[in-house]
Amino acid sequence: MSDCLFCRIVAGEVPAKVVHQDDEVVAFRDIDPKAPTHVLLVPRRHIPSLRETADADAALLGRMIMIARDLAVREGIDGSGYRVVINSGPQAGQSVFHVHVHLLGGRAMAWPPG
Amino acid sequence: MSDCLFCRIVAGEVPAKVVHQDDEVVAFRDIDPKAPTHVLLVPRRHIPSLRETADADAALLGRMIMIARDLAVREGIDGSGYRVVINSGPQAGQSVFHVHVHLLGGRAMAWPPG
Repeated sequence: MSDCLFCRIVAGEVPAKVVHQDDEVVAFRDIDPKAPTHVLLVPRRHIPSLRETADADAALLGRMIMIARDLAVREGIDGSGYRVVINSGPQAGQSVFHVHVHLLGGRAMAWPPG
Repeated sequence: MSDCLFCRIVAGEVPAKVVHQDDEVVAFRDIDPKAPTHVLLVPRRHIPSLRETADADAALLGRMIMIARDLAVREGIDGSGYRVVINSGPQAGQSVFHVHVHLLGGRAMAWPPG
């Protein structure tokens, strides 16, 4: 059994409120949401961080961004606006070392972004 | 002449501190930086926002994320960490309606991301 939380969610070993899944990507609600909509998108394949992606992962990352865009429509926040965030490494606050995209919206987002 | 600021930067009509350019993407330093490294990556082609990207733009968005990853290495912030942000729409604080990716690093980034 993996000791990566997101691998365990992808495998269905840890429950999560899944809002999208396909053969490459799983999206679920953040357990500690920072906005009315706060969804995490992860690849099924374990990649520790953006830093550790390969050039060949560009299409996967692009698809994750497109799925975030589509989820924003489903969540009804595409008109009001939304923020997409990827944290890589400790100073960015990355807490789970399985690359993930945050989708946040449903409230005004301040600047700077943290 | 375009009235889009980022189209004018791409065209060289407005000066910017360009840190990367290729046939699809231009990256330059934010004029109002919110971190020691704060770079904006834009496609040469005008797309108003993430909301208005097409599925066919997935590869372009993925490449932009990979270029941000590579710039983080060049900026010396890939080990300490960095945050990648895309704002779409008014509540997210998007101020220039030409889709762009923010790369921020060189300091600890707070949570939530705005």
